[in-house]
Amino acid sequence: MRVALKFAYDGSVFWGYQRQPNVRTVEGDIIKALNRTKMIQGVKENNFQSSSRTDRGASAVGNVIAFDTDFKKGQMLRALNSNVKDVYFWGFAEVNDDFNPRHARQRWYRYHLDKGLDLDGLKRASSLFVGEHDFKNFCRRSERSTVRRMDSIKVSRKRNFIYLDIKGESFLWNMVRRMVLALVKYANGEIPKKAITEALAGKQTDFGLAPAHPLFLMDVTYDFTFEVRESSIPPSFRQNYEKVLIQGELFSTLQERIG
Amino acid sequence: MRVALKFAYDGSVFWGYQRQPNVRTVEGDIIKALNRTKMIQGVKENNFQSSSRTDRGASAVGNVIAFDTDFKKGQMLRALNSNVKDVYFWGFAEVNDDFNPRHARQRWYRYHLDKGLDLDGLKRASSLFVGEHDFKNFCRRSERSTVRRMDSIKVSRKRNFIYLDIKGESFLWNMVRRMVLALVKYANGEIPKKAITEALAGKQTDFGLAPAHPLFLMDVTYDFTFEVRESSIPPSFRQNYEKVLIQGELFSTLQERIG
Repeated sequence: MRVALKFAYDGSVFWGYQRQPNVRTVEGDIIKALNRTKMIQGVKENNFQSSSRTDRGASAVGNVIAFDTDFKKGQMLRALNSNVKDVYFWGFAEVNDDFNPRHARQRWYRYHLDKGLDLDGLKRASSLFVGEHDFKNFCRRSERSTVRRMDSIKVSRKRNFIYLDIKGESFLWNMVRRMVLALVKYANGEIPKKAITEALAGKQTDFGLAPAHPLFLMDVTYDFTFEVRESSIPPSFRQNYEKVLIQGELFSTLQERIG
Repeated sequence: MRVALKFAYDGSVFWGYQRQPNVRTVEGDIIKALNRTKMIQGVKENNFQSSSRTDRGASAVGNVIAFDTDFKKGQMLRALNSNVKDVYFWGFAEVNDDFNPRHARQRWYRYHLDKGLDLDGLKRASSLFVGEHDFKNFCRRSERSTVRRMDSIKVSRKRNFIYLDIKGESFLWNMVRRMVLALVKYANGEIPKKAITEALAGKQTDFGLAPAHPLFLMDVTYDFTFEVRESSIPPSFRQNYEKVLIQGELFSTLQERIG
């Protein structure tokens, strides 16, 4: 059978997503776990594929891999979670033999911005990106087509951050981070709206690249759903979560003291 | 002149407080920074002293050091903050030549507990520790007197945690962590109240040791006040704070998704 698994990871502790020798990557750690649990014989033999190669530093709540396997369905998530660190498998689906996770219905990215930014400015400028555009000024140069369709961009202020929730079928390399920096520059009054519309119309422009670590791949969706299995999440999730909350207490308490 | 400085640190990245060879400790890093900035010639020459040697893994919002120096008063905090990582100097006081930071008016510790614990149970049991007691069952064995006076223990539920705020003039090694585990065991119904009163009355008992990382040394106070200088806090504070908040977003978002 062929299966698709959905998983989260903390990008701050990896050297990017894509497997490469001598450094710790998300894909590399996942493949090691698949080999160790004997879920696959090899990447090629079992047609292992990843949905999205997120940037170094970026995290994911719901990235997707697919591979062929004979492993027992009900035990896969738990077995993998016991063999990875800082990666959390939480969704399972049995898929068609020709399923390739790169071909998604929609990808959802979230970028975390300073909550002090001008919310209305961000909303005004983000609407410019919605719809079909040539994003050649919002990516690393590449040979292939740079036309993409943004389904929606939602701007909302939450407790600690402004969320920029961006949805579309597929994205170019660095695209979200380049869009984000243009939006921030507009919200800060550093560039006029016209600079963005002209860049989308083709005028060569380089707004620069926003940092990677505030970027999350929130979800990748297909024309089927994943079974969600909370029980397979390992105790390390709760422990790491608590550790991060305690670190947050340190910084917020200090901020109150000196503020 | 002799000065006292107040500082915070993230204990999760250090091998404890006390200086020792070949591992990264809070005190070790501070002494390196004092040497590098030429604020001191040496630990002995400048009578360098620390207030509290916190346990490995524990953090501090307000620990205190003192030393003799000729460095320019107004520039010390900023100069030190430029020469340390994960330590944040934020308070300054000029003190008497014979000032020893170990002799404090009061120390304030905060322990972070799971917010699901029985608040009333914790309150009932914590009142048992207030006042003067022999804490020989709540410390590592030591030769010196184990009688200590707890000024107050406050139990309060905040957003992510229950805070246990414990104040007293001085504490024995591991004392807070041993008190905490006794309180938790009582709140969970694992031990009766009598077990605590008997242990405080001298009956040999070992309730065990709560983990170190949820423990913060919140403050050490004297009969003088520190000047608080927010401007000396380096940009790395804001960056590290943001990084931790973003990691928190990952865990909370994943929790919502699978919960």
